[in-house]
Amino acid sequence: MMQKYAAEFMGTFMLVFLGTGAVTVAAGNTLTIGLAFGLAITISAYAFGGISGGHFNPAVTTAMLINRRIDGRDAAGYIVAQFLGATVASACMRLFVGGLGLATTQLGQTDFPKISTGLAFVVETLVTFLFLMVILNVTSDRHGNGDFAGLTIGITLAFLIIVALNLTGGSLNPARSFGPAIFAGGSALSHLWLYIVAPEVGAILAAFVARLMGSED
Amino acid sequence: MMQKYAAEFMGTFMLVFLGTGAVTVAAGNTLTIGLAFGLAITISAYAFGGISGGHFNPAVTTAMLINRRIDGRDAAGYIVAQFLGATVASACMRLFVGGLGLATTQLGQTDFPKISTGLAFVVETLVTFLFLMVILNVTSDRHGNGDFAGLTIGITLAFLIIVALNLTGGSLNPARSFGPAIFAGGSALSHLWLYIVAPEVGAILAAFVARLMGSED
Amino acid sequence: MMQKYAAEFMGTFMLVFLGTGAVTVAAGNTLTIGLAFGLAITISAYAFGGISGGHFNPAVTTAMLINRRIDGRDAAGYIVAQFLGATVASACMRLFVGGLGLATTQLGQTDFPKISTGLAFVVETLVTFLFLMVILNVTSDRHGNGDFAGLTIGITLAFLIIVALNLTGGSLNPARSFGPAIFAGGSALSHLWLYIVAPEVGAILAAFVARLMGSED
Amino acid sequence: MMQKYAAEFMGTFMLVFLGTGAVTVAAGNTLTIGLAFGLAITISAYAFGGISGGHFNPAVTTAMLINRRIDGRDAAGYIVAQFLGATVASACMRLFVGGLGLATTQLGQTDFPKISTGLAFVVETLVTFLFLMVILNVTSDRHGNGDFAGLTIGITLAFLIIVALNLTGGSLNPARSFGPAIFAGGSALSHLWLYIVAPEVGAILAAFVARLMGSED
Repeated sequence: MMQKYAAEFMGTFMLVFLGTGAVTVAAGNTLTIGLAFGLAITISAYAFGGISGGHFNPAVTTAMLINRRIDGRDAAGYIVAQFLGATVASACMRLFVGGLGLATTQLGQTDFPKISTGLAFVVETLVTFLFLMVILNVTSDRHGNGDFAGLTIGITLAFLIIVALNLTGGSLNPARSFGPAIFAGGSALSHLWLYIVAPEVGAILAAFVARLMGSED
Repeated sequence: MMQKYAAEFMGTFMLVFLGTGAVTVAAGNTLTIGLAFGLAITISAYAFGGISGGHFNPAVTTAMLINRRIDGRDAAGYIVAQFLGATVASACMRLFVGGLGLATTQLGQTDFPKISTGLAFVVETLVTFLFLMVILNVTSDRHGNGDFAGLTIGITLAFLIIVALNLTGGSLNPARSFGPAIFAGGSALSHLWLYIVAPEVGAILAAFVARLMGSED
Repeated sequence: MMQKYAAEFMGTFMLVFLGTGAVTVAAGNTLTIGLAFGLAITISAYAFGGISGGHFNPAVTTAMLINRRIDGRDAAGYIVAQFLGATVASACMRLFVGGLGLATTQLGQTDFPKISTGLAFVVETLVTFLFLMVILNVTSDRHGNGDFAGLTIGITLAFLIIVALNLTGGSLNPARSFGPAIFAGGSALSHLWLYIVAPEVGAILAAFVARLMGSED
Repeated sequence: MMQKYAAEFMGTFMLVFLGTGAVTVAAGNTLTIGLAFGLAITISAYAFGGISGGHFNPAVTTAMLINRRIDGRDAAGYIVAQFLGATVASACMRLFVGGLGLATTQLGQTDFPKISTGLAFVVETLVTFLFLMVILNVTSDRHGNGDFAGLTIGITLAFLIIVALNLTGGSLNPARSFGPAIFAGGSALSHLWLYIVAPEVGAILAAFVARLMGSED
């Protein structure tokens, strides 16, 4: 059981470490940032997914719980591990940007300075909904593609983040937003509620809609 | 049956959402745009292709109909779903660019401001022909490669779009051009006929030529 | 038999069409150009390799002939088809750049304006040797990886071209250099001999060295 | 036995040739450099991994030795072959940059001009630890994914290097730092000890931690 939680910790750590590292330390362009977040999920799915199933995201765990692919006790353990993994990754990133003499309030946190709160909520809900629709169908026993699921899920996240980057920063994951926000503070922290609620709403919607497409048969 | 049409709706939605999103909201470079359109097909093929076969393009459905891999009734349903998916994706994109204060007439529509209509027709016909040659052979029961088909088809679309981007915008798909054009209007709308007819011509040619290479044996 | 030659024509056409198209019409950056050439081989290997084995390069065919993976008659047919495919692709590219009002002498041809002829010969020989070492081992019955061979070979070509781009243009393929050179003329044509001889030398060396590593057991 | 050592030589040569070539001759951007190093491992794993297991890195060999996946004699041979492969690749690169009239002291060597020695040690230890955690789990007989291991490991290296690039140059591999340093001299050579010790420390830690996750069951 602890091995499963450790796997969720490692995968979520990799997501925030590689993704926000590409934003901050590496000052990557749009494609680099999207691929860093997305492919972090791909590699963690193939490396650690055999242990835990490879959620690395509380919204994913919520959808899996609704569709009974995980039990409540494990779901709680997974979500705690995910928040811990993201937090430790952001602590590392704070150390790195500090060592480079950069502002330690720029940690790749998510925010929406250019758009309204309402639109930000819609965007995060929609892209997380689409993300879960891909996840639930590509891992479906009935019509999924197990071998390529890790690659599919990672590429999906990469390009959904690329589309959402200028709107909301492209979170789709409460843990991914939590880690940097608690160190960065400011509006990333005061807006954190949106990055927890909206992805969960999108994931819950997808859990039901994916069933209509036969994902749980 | 409705699940198949829903799968075609979802895949075509993803194509236009990720592809035109990379163009507009993300202001991506050439490689990012090509990969966004192309890999949208890859992920939809692995996630939803198990339900519908993964066309996401009326020209693909036409070629599959000619080579008897789909019946006429499903083909009609697929094409309706594809146009709907593209239209809803463009409606989302219009909401996003509006929320950012950008011009709502720049929605990633396809047009050919730099070249003649004749050459534009040749380009769209040729690249769609090449796209279908890859699709029909890589999914061939005789000499195809089922596992890697989704990846192959997506990468093919990505680089064909990259080559065609400065010529015609690189559509290869009547539904992909339809969605943005009806919201953007202007010459994208008056030139829409070319993006419907030329890809279909390319696909029909490929259906016959691929048979000569043994794709339907 | 004609189907095999048609497959070689198609794959070599795709290589030159996507690769030189990324250089000329798309004005792509280094990564885009490398990936366009390399992944053209990947997609053609999965789509057409089931028909012909997927050489798309006279130097590859030479190495396969030496190591008895193809007979002499087919090798001759393959090489003719490869030169034809590259030539037709360059004719298309000439039409495209002309339609855009660009110079029709800039067709993505290979040349070495910055380095000596001797070093250019060494570079093309070395990178083609490395390319064939990967090809012969990844397709080895003894220790290869059939499923991932197409992806491996394409990525190898992509990054070998990226390294060689500022030195020799990164050909590794007599047919790829022939197509653009005959339309572009100038020093690309007068230096064409090097892009025919050096890759063949590299391929012949690799055929023997790969045997020492057990590729033909 | 010599075939195994030759495979390790070839793979490490490819890593340094493609990776430092992307830095120097190609003047690639962050994404290009990361992918060049990372995907060099992917292609070598699929092409030569069937012969030697595909380490291409003394730190990897050390971890494999600790977890008894290789015996001591082979480990010594592998490490010698890896240092040789990296050195020959850097000799090639020195020839190339010299031929282009570039400074022959810029060979893609690793160094840490912007951060303290202590932080550099932490960074190289941490990223190598993460790299080995992925390697040991994705190749685990118990919960790994053999087919996608080569792709997973290469993508992991690519994005770990992207994060570390502005901190330490992103080595994770004593042989990769040794090759360029002995030709470049200067602080890359005087700091070489760090790029030998820190990756080994990270790899040794990972060997034990991965066992706790069940990688060796």
